[in-house]
Amino acid sequence: MKTLKVIKIGGNIIDNEDALNTFLKDFAKIESLKILVHGGGKLATKLANQMGVAVKMTEGRRITDQNTLDIITMVYAGKINKNIVAKLQANRCNAIGFSGADGNAIVSVKRPVKPVDYGFVGDVVKVNIETMEVLLGNNVTPVFCAITHDGKGQLFNTNADTIASELAVGFANLYNTELYYCFEKNGVLRNVNDDGSVIKHIDTKNYQDLIDQNVIADGMLPKLNNCFHAIDRNVQKVCIGKREMLFDKNANFTTITQ
Amino acid sequence: MKTLKVIKIGGNIIDNEDALNTFLKDFAKIESLKILVHGGGKLATKLANQMGVAVKMTEGRRITDQNTLDIITMVYAGKINKNIVAKLQANRCNAIGFSGADGNAIVSVKRPVKPVDYGFVGDVVKVNIETMEVLLGNNVTPVFCAITHDGKGQLFNTNADTIASELAVGFANLYNTELYYCFEKNGVLRNVNDDGSVIKHIDTKNYQDLIDQNVIADGMLPKLNNCFHAIDRNVQKVCIGKREMLFDKNANFTTITQ
Repeated sequence: MKTLKVIKIGGNIIDNEDALNTFLKDFAKIESLKILVHGGGKLATKLANQMGVAVKMTEGRRITDQNTLDIITMVYAGKINKNIVAKLQANRCNAIGFSGADGNAIVSVKRPVKPVDYGFVGDVVKVNIETMEVLLGNNVTPVFCAITHDGKGQLFNTNADTIASELAVGFANLYNTELYYCFEKNGVLRNVNDDGSVIKHIDTKNYQDLIDQNVIADGMLPKLNNCFHAIDRNVQKVCIGKREMLFDKNANFTTITQ
Repeated sequence: MKTLKVIKIGGNIIDNEDALNTFLKDFAKIESLKILVHGGGKLATKLANQMGVAVKMTEGRRITDQNTLDIITMVYAGKINKNIVAKLQANRCNAIGFSGADGNAIVSVKRPVKPVDYGFVGDVVKVNIETMEVLLGNNVTPVFCAITHDGKGQLFNTNADTIASELAVGFANLYNTELYYCFEKNGVLRNVNDDGSVIKHIDTKNYQDLIDQNVIADGMLPKLNNCFHAIDRNVQKVCIGKREMLFDKNANFTTITQ
């Protein structure tokens, strides 16, 4: 069975041109099948400010109204995605940019409006791997931005961590699938201020303990939920850490297992 | 030999949501292999104004500086391209959005800086059909925006008519390839103010006469040059007219032949 690595990168790589160039150079060399998923970083907020579009929040969370959806589509699927694709081509990696609409790859439904109407935010309901499978079989690397569609012509904003997890699940029965979340820390930390306090293994047994001890909280909770969503559905391996976990055998990072 | 229709649509369709919806509904039903190429319409200028980015002109032509390239990439490859792809999916046409960087499909070089430096404008040097051929063979429809790349990581602004012509040429030895330019008039007109004065056939013989008579001038000249570029390189059929030329057997339009 072939191996597929689904790798998600966040703002700490996307917002730093040197970091992005270094990452993409290394990513291009990965010999297994691979899919890249990128978040949006700070560019969407910057563009919204330039355009005078107000950021709407409800209960501390951003609302995706029509203007915000347009901005996200322009920044994620346009500027960031196409620049990544062009840089990968320069590194001899034959990439194609994807939103969930392309190849009907990721279908979502609008998040229920109660208790909060988040606007054009979609929850994933189906991943269609057929077109991607053909491309992967021809040595093409899909590069995903965090946009999905409902199959009826509507685009939706969807969390990039979730997209990575759902893609990995979609391929888990076809390939030996591994999911990597690259972010700004060495992994899940026992002490959030100590990058040396990496928890090397999390499984279903110690997960609840770590939540109860408040070690896993805030932004790490949805990320870990995405990890277990994948692990519970046949994804072979899920890792969280800095980019070094992919390229450096001595790197410290967190591995999530069943 | 299978037939491939390469169809380019311009601002009169893209800038009008009803016209776009109607066009895409009909386009989705085309049974042959097909590629859609879209220009940018007025949205890029609108966004530049919103962002306070000045349009730079030299000798009456727009200069693509870094800010303008970013805007074009956001609008063409982001907002317009992804909305078209989502609408095609809603019409059961399995589309994938492309820039020239995706699949390394269209490689260009920066236009020579003399006599005028147009900035990030690329002239096409190579079309790589391999990845698109795989997709077309799997009933996937590429949807191209007017952006190319140099293979070294740089995106370029490239005329959409040229992209359509170069794509048609790229496939001309593989398929029975037809090229259609949809625009706001019934075709090449003998009298620019009379939409009934369509010149039904233009060939290499009467082309020069029409230029000498000043019937073909201004914006029609580069469009016709793109037509003959294709016809001279084995494209079977090139047509210019309104969208009806594709869907209405009684439509009047201009056909260009060798």
